Amino acid sequence: MLTTETKIRVRYGETDQMAYVYYGNYPLYYEVARTDMIRKIGWTYTQMEKSGVMMPVALLNVKYLLPAYYDDELTIKVTVKNLPTKKMEFEYEVFNEQGKLINTGNTTLVFVDMKTGKPTNPPEEFMEKIREYF
Amino acid sequence: MLTTETKIRVRYGETDQMAYVYYGNYPLYYEVARTDMIRKIGWTYTQMEKSGVMMPVALLNVKYLLPAYYDDELTIKVTVKNLPTKKMEFEYEVFNEQGKLINTGNTTLVFVDMKTGKPTNPPEEFMEKIREYF
Amino acid sequence: MLTTETKIRVRYGETDQMAYVYYGNYPLYYEVARTDMIRKIGWTYTQMEKSGVMMPVALLNVKYLLPAYYDDELTIKVTVKNLPTKKMEFEYEVFNEQGKLINTGNTTLVFVDMKTGKPTNPPEEFMEKIREYF
Amino acid sequence: MLTTETKIRVRYGETDQMAYVYYGNYPLYYEVARTDMIRKIGWTYTQMEKSGVMMPVALLNVKYLLPAYYDDELTIKVTVKNLPTKKMEFEYEVFNEQGKLINTGNTTLVFVDMKTGKPTNPPEEFMEKIREYF
Repeated sequence: MLTTETKIRVRYGETDQMAYVYYGNYPLYYEVARTDMIRKIGWTYTQMEKSGVMMPVALLNVKYLLPAYYDDELTIKVTVKNLPTKKMEFEYEVFNEQGKLINTGNTTLVFVDMKTGKPTNPPEEFMEKIREYF
Repeated sequence: MLTTETKIRVRYGETDQMAYVYYGNYPLYYEVARTDMIRKIGWTYTQMEKSGVMMPVALLNVKYLLPAYYDDELTIKVTVKNLPTKKMEFEYEVFNEQGKLINTGNTTLVFVDMKTGKPTNPPEEFMEKIREYF
Repeated sequence: MLTTETKIRVRYGETDQMAYVYYGNYPLYYEVARTDMIRKIGWTYTQMEKSGVMMPVALLNVKYLLPAYYDDELTIKVTVKNLPTKKMEFEYEVFNEQGKLINTGNTTLVFVDMKTGKPTNPPEEFMEKIREYF
Repeated sequence: MLTTETKIRVRYGETDQMAYVYYGNYPLYYEVARTDMIRKIGWTYTQMEKSGVMMPVALLNVKYLLPAYYDDELTIKVTVKNLPTKKMEFEYEVFNEQGKLINTGNTTLVFVDMKTGKPTNPPEEFMEKIREYF
């Protein structure tokens, strides 16, 4: 199992007139956190695309438990429970500065060959990095 | 049952370097479509907040079936299957210009009293409008 | 001189906790309006890129006169005063539903050859369309 | 004179199909950098609003010199050359990881009394913090 944490500070432009973080911004936070996870295991998503594989999102689920506010420093905990196959699932837990769980979610991403547009296996170099955690 | 359709044209800034609409923009499209639905039944979300009730999102689920591209004119079909209680569920189907279903999703919104911050019943005036469809 | 008008309805996610449209969203509105202008003269920005020319923005200037609010239907008036050379300047005036001028701005875009990355002349087919207005 | 630096990593959702950071995202980067500047002098923008003063943007000017790309770690250098009066001007320089200047800009923000909606002087506590740099 692989778990990492990433901190994100809420931008003014990410709030809405309710003074909450707009619900549509959490997917962006999730993206930052999983990009960071990939970097932390010694690889980058840029290398993924350079090796001809992209990872579009196939599924997104979000539960909004409590609001986040402007300038909050959020902690996004990302967990990958299973070794990637042709797809990869990430789970997210978002905590505010008081340590309260305010949001949970998950995304399923698919490995796609950028030439053929078809699902493919993850690059072997990426698999080598991630296998160390399983 | 209440069903409406709303057209949205994809903005350049909503694409990402994959040349797809970024996955985090669909919640924004859903919001436009449900705002439009509320307007079409003779009420507005602005009136909702003026009557002291706001509707934060509690749940979001999205399935990405096919990509949307820059300048595509998408049709968002929104369906409300059940009369709102203290919450209201919207289902979405997104079609591209070729009529292909490219995305489905749903959101659950909660009626919240803006003074107390607690769940509440929808404004009666809103219920009168929506009951006509059930 | 070429002038067109485009209507945009403000999305909830485009407001911030001040309850104003976030200042960073006007460039997006400008983009929608100039895309629409290009369509209205019988061409599309997608055709531009298909013909190997892209138009990155080189300059942006914005004056915020009055706020725009959620669900406002804004009118963006775009004016092109000079025939494009290797660059093209657009001027914007944004009016709210009461007809008040709330925002003005301009952008300079450059025609860039997508293969060489160098400035280039606009596609001749595009120039034919736009010359009719000058 | 007051100068601070803030690092921002480009998010995937902030790129567009040109694979550049979308031009409309620089105002968001500027906001992050000036929020960070205010924090670094021992105050916060949240305190500003809590003391009844908000700072809407009145003017924005941006020059796009070179593109920024996904996952680039950008450095935003912010400079305030003059003590705030009823308004405050920030200048920005954005550098990429290679140290190249890729973008410059400036914004003028106005201090507005949140009750009256009129321009006002900055909170005295904020002025005390900032005077140390002039």
